[in-house]
Amino acid sequence: MDTKGRGIAVGVIGLGAMGGGIAASLRRAGFDTFVFDVRREVAESFAKEGGTACATLAALGAACEIVVSAVVNAAQTEKVLFGADGEDGAASAMRKGSVFVMCSTVDANWSIALEARLSERGLLYLDAPMSGGAARAASGELTMMTSGRPEAYAKCQPVLDAMARHVYRLGDRAGAGSKVKTIHQLLAGVHIAAAAEAMALGLREGVDPAALYEVITHCAGNSWMFENRMPHVLAGDYTPLSAVDIFVKDLGLVLDLARASKFPLPLASTAHQLFLQASTAGYAKEDDSAVIKVYPGITLPEKKA
Amino acid sequence: MDTKGRGIAVGVIGLGAMGGGIAASLRRAGFDTFVFDVRREVAESFAKEGGTACATLAALGAACEIVVSAVVNAAQTEKVLFGADGEDGAASAMRKGSVFVMCSTVDANWSIALEARLSERGLLYLDAPMSGGAARAASGELTMMTSGRPEAYAKCQPVLDAMARHVYRLGDRAGAGSKVKTIHQLLAGVHIAAAAEAMALGLREGVDPAALYEVITHCAGNSWMFENRMPHVLAGDYTPLSAVDIFVKDLGLVLDLARASKFPLPLASTAHQLFLQASTAGYAKEDDSAVIKVYPGITLPEKKA
Repeated sequence: MDTKGRGIAVGVIGLGAMGGGIAASLRRAGFDTFVFDVRREVAESFAKEGGTACATLAALGAACEIVVSAVVNAAQTEKVLFGADGEDGAASAMRKGSVFVMCSTVDANWSIALEARLSERGLLYLDAPMSGGAARAASGELTMMTSGRPEAYAKCQPVLDAMARHVYRLGDRAGAGSKVKTIHQLLAGVHIAAAAEAMALGLREGVDPAALYEVITHCAGNSWMFENRMPHVLAGDYTPLSAVDIFVKDLGLVLDLARASKFPLPLASTAHQLFLQASTAGYAKEDDSAVIKVYPGITLPEKKA
Repeated sequence: MDTKGRGIAVGVIGLGAMGGGIAASLRRAGFDTFVFDVRREVAESFAKEGGTACATLAALGAACEIVVSAVVNAAQTEKVLFGADGEDGAASAMRKGSVFVMCSTVDANWSIALEARLSERGLLYLDAPMSGGAARAASGELTMMTSGRPEAYAKCQPVLDAMARHVYRLGDRAGAGSKVKTIHQLLAGVHIAAAAEAMALGLREGVDPAALYEVITHCAGNSWMFENRMPHVLAGDYTPLSAVDIFVKDLGLVLDLARASKFPLPLASTAHQLFLQASTAGYAKEDDSAVIKVYPGITLPEKKA
């Protein structure tokens, strides 16, 4: 066990694919790691190897000077901070001067407002969406797109360093972190849909899809997403690593952000329609590469037995 | 001088940014290089360092067993092969069994028909669009997306090897080469427009554009085109390396190909509209990254003096 976190109490809320890995990375780095999950048994299972499972969000908030939130979206973040169904949230118990690190992908304008709401309670805030997937969360090698007050960074820099390989520091107030994450998702979503559209046209035209993949990934038409996702199509395997509905949500956030400043996004809105079409056609929980299934008149490669 | 081309007469039609480099690569490889360009002086200037400037396309066709065409599009290819304005084209003089290597980006169905038309004259054909830009043409390091009859490859493989670092062999008839190139252009065009849309949203939202570039190029939202083109926007330098009108043309070819088989391309058609808008707004001859200028309500970085 590393010792850099020794004596610092850190909470992690939400032990899903990302939060579970983050909590493990923090524990490995020597932090006193407190965890909460609505699935009580998940938190208790985590604590068997070290750390403390909290029965309530208030207990976690009271114990920790830094609270990392890895829940799904803004609505869940509201609940874990401010309570729901008669239960207190973490904010009610957090001591003044402690920091809430918000790692979800959310509306940037909501994140800006949250900084102000927490500030009224004497709490610091870091706008800190993450990128990288479950494997990188587990290995402490996430990429984080962050912004916030210098006082917030001063408290939680060791925590960020234990979670992430790259911590981009994008501004001294909340907002820039979530904006950059949102713009990243614009590109990620458009690139997945474009990869599907290109592969679909190739199938329609009788081009060998494996040869098409080989050429594109060696040429200027390549994208990280084309290279990463199209093997799922070639293998006919739509087991979700990241699901269609993630981009229904995230491209929705992209469009919300732009609409708030009346800004047109022709490509992002087209890609969003494709993910909506895929979701409602029955592929919501499949891998996001299943957006290719909305293209008609093609025969997709089948999964080998 | 290399000697692998010794004794083989090869013609190059069109000494523009690509054809000029191809001709130089062939000459360097030791081929007897015959060249034709409508700008007679360009051909004569080339021949000063070796090779032969042909006064007519028929003279070039008669002299060469392999003819490489690097003109702009299908219409020009028609002219150089079959003549125009009372002048014979190269096909009238080419000997039976010689090969026409078509390197332009064209409608794949036109390329398929051209193979048949040349076959009626006893001529072989290679559908061989290229990718890589002027610098790679000059260094003999192009990427070529090719298809054609084995007899055509048997004759011109040494020529392809002198032109290109990667020669993808995609089928034993014309069509697959142009189809893969067209699908590549779908991705390239959508990625440039998506890069512009993302950067434009960042500017609208007050995000530091250099920081946005740094984050995206290290994350899953990256594309070859984002990484390559957005420095032009950051520098405010729209000197054309490849112009807006190239994608007006190439995304048009993408849509023509798909329309011929009644196939929908929501993203490619949206990107095409953006390039059309940029072209007609006055940016036709600027760098293709100038497609960002169609986004309203933003202040783009200015070129440093």
